[in-house]
Amino acid sequence: MSNRKSREIRLKSRPAGMVSPENFELAEVTLPAPGPGQVLVRNSYMTVDPYMRGRMMDRQSYVPPFQIGEALTGGAVGQVVEAGPGAQFQVGDHVQSFGGWREAFVANGPELMTQKIDPIPGVGIQSYLGSLGMPGMTAYAGLLRIGEFKPEDSVFVSAASGAVGAVVCQIAKAKGSKRVVGSAGSDEKCAWLKQIGCDEAINYKTCGDLHAAVARAFPDGIGVYFDNVGGAHLEAALGNMRQFGRLAECGMIEQYNATEPPPGPRNMILTVGLSLTIRGFIVSNHYDMAPDFMRDMAAWIKAGKMTWKETIYDGIERAPEAFIGLFKGENFGKMLVRVGPDTAV
Amino acid sequence: MSNRKSREIRLKSRPAGMVSPENFELAEVTLPAPGPGQVLVRNSYMTVDPYMRGRMMDRQSYVPPFQIGEALTGGAVGQVVEAGPGAQFQVGDHVQSFGGWREAFVANGPELMTQKIDPIPGVGIQSYLGSLGMPGMTAYAGLLRIGEFKPEDSVFVSAASGAVGAVVCQIAKAKGSKRVVGSAGSDEKCAWLKQIGCDEAINYKTCGDLHAAVARAFPDGIGVYFDNVGGAHLEAALGNMRQFGRLAECGMIEQYNATEPPPGPRNMILTVGLSLTIRGFIVSNHYDMAPDFMRDMAAWIKAGKMTWKETIYDGIERAPEAFIGLFKGENFGKMLVRVGPDTAV
Repeated sequence: MSNRKSREIRLKSRPAGMVSPENFELAEVTLPAPGPGQVLVRNSYMTVDPYMRGRMMDRQSYVPPFQIGEALTGGAVGQVVEAGPGAQFQVGDHVQSFGGWREAFVANGPELMTQKIDPIPGVGIQSYLGSLGMPGMTAYAGLLRIGEFKPEDSVFVSAASGAVGAVVCQIAKAKGSKRVVGSAGSDEKCAWLKQIGCDEAINYKTCGDLHAAVARAFPDGIGVYFDNVGGAHLEAALGNMRQFGRLAECGMIEQYNATEPPPGPRNMILTVGLSLTIRGFIVSNHYDMAPDFMRDMAAWIKAGKMTWKETIYDGIERAPEAFIGLFKGENFGKMLVRVGPDTAV
Repeated sequence: MSNRKSREIRLKSRPAGMVSPENFELAEVTLPAPGPGQVLVRNSYMTVDPYMRGRMMDRQSYVPPFQIGEALTGGAVGQVVEAGPGAQFQVGDHVQSFGGWREAFVANGPELMTQKIDPIPGVGIQSYLGSLGMPGMTAYAGLLRIGEFKPEDSVFVSAASGAVGAVVCQIAKAKGSKRVVGSAGSDEKCAWLKQIGCDEAINYKTCGDLHAAVARAFPDGIGVYFDNVGGAHLEAALGNMRQFGRLAECGMIEQYNATEPPPGPRNMILTVGLSLTIRGFIVSNHYDMAPDFMRDMAAWIKAGKMTWKETIYDGIERAPEAFIGLFKGENFGKMLVRVGPDTAV
């Protein structure tokens, strides 16, 4: 019998304003033996993502809210360590699931959306939580379908060194854009953006007037703006769009912890004169693109056209700290928490 | 030889804030005899439209700015009263043109976009400046192409009794929408909106909290919002959209006379969670739809499904007053200026 102890992070209270460690609690549980059709999965990595902040509020949204006193959920990758009779996975199988924020769980396939994965040799299994997973798919659908990117488009990306942003930048270059500019919050991140092919990078914390900085970076205007940030970035992008430009609204991390409605872009009038399209999206509505995404990403990785950064915190107990760090820009690239042995390396 | 005197309205100074009578001047000119290929046109009606406010500013936009000391231009309908040798129009022909803000002009066909029209019996020639003209075409392209209207969509229209808005409401009903609600600035306008088929009408001046009023009018949310107003209307609409809803940005009359950038919608984050599309447009990019528009409008008029209101000011000297009245809601329906004999009646 395998070890059936697991530790998990529960929502202790709903955050008001900036999320803090007090909103979480660590608990230990003993899992049952996997029943018919079930497996016991030990996670190697879990992901923290900005959208989870919304689920901590008690409100209707595109995903139901987390419940107080219950373990949070989110993406994870791990390995099957015990299988009940008739289970569709075998001991040793690598799986991705929605069973994050815990070290281990018992589920059948559909529960927690558990699916088998075949790790790509030389690429860490945790990439299924980043460039090969939901953030990568978000970048792919957002740039190509929502942003209707064409090779002649110049592209501006906010939070460009992040899990989604960095993939957007590299897809745009791989598909032939002549001008891709990203913004990030440190000179180190900006230097890396140039290494991965960005024509320019804007440090939004030191550039002064953001509108002017974006204008200098795009003398001929922006074709597609990929928005992860909202707020001042959205207004600066709107003010520098080309006619028929598109703004793919992926997220607005600037305001996820706001307690008052933040000011909106004061230049919405430009949508009329420039015939702009601002379109929001949720990646889960675009999984019909997943086969194309996996094929293209594998090819780009093989061709050396797709790299990414990871910031890894060790131990399930540090998951709240990792999550909070997202809103302070403490991650460089994909923010992950290692919660068990890295079985696929 | 016909009378070749004409009076015209010139831009005297660029408005700062609300446009005022001092920004205009009336001048009298004597036109030349029409040369080869040219005709002398006497206008019956000219139109004043909100977008002209933008052309009074000295800034780059989708149409070049008006020049100080020169006659303004805009839509007009009239009749050819004198023709030079080889002209493509004959004396007596009815024409629409961009030669408004004046009583008469000399031009060949392409100049001032002069085109022959065949008045529909029983429908005043001035309808070519309204429901059968640019405003009607704006409604048609904006609702059907930009708003991607489908019969199952509920539709919210701001400035709904205006030249564009009233056509939007009636197209939506003619195409099968089960719920069309318009907003307007008087009880009289709201009563008329119900007469032309709106399921409800909101008097935005007396309804109190606009967001709440829109929520009551759309318990199941808005499918398509047709925006002529911007500002508080846009924020209220955004806050009541259905998933995958579309916002057709046609104009933002609320802010055309603003001297400071107005506050933007504070709820742009909803574009992400609800997968909304906000799309601006300029009707001139959609004239490929003109044949369909003319066919459909003629059919709807014949079937009694399309009516409209007109507010007519008499005399070219009153054109500035009519234009200024647009921003004060003094028009009920299409705002027109009668500048000559109504030759087609």
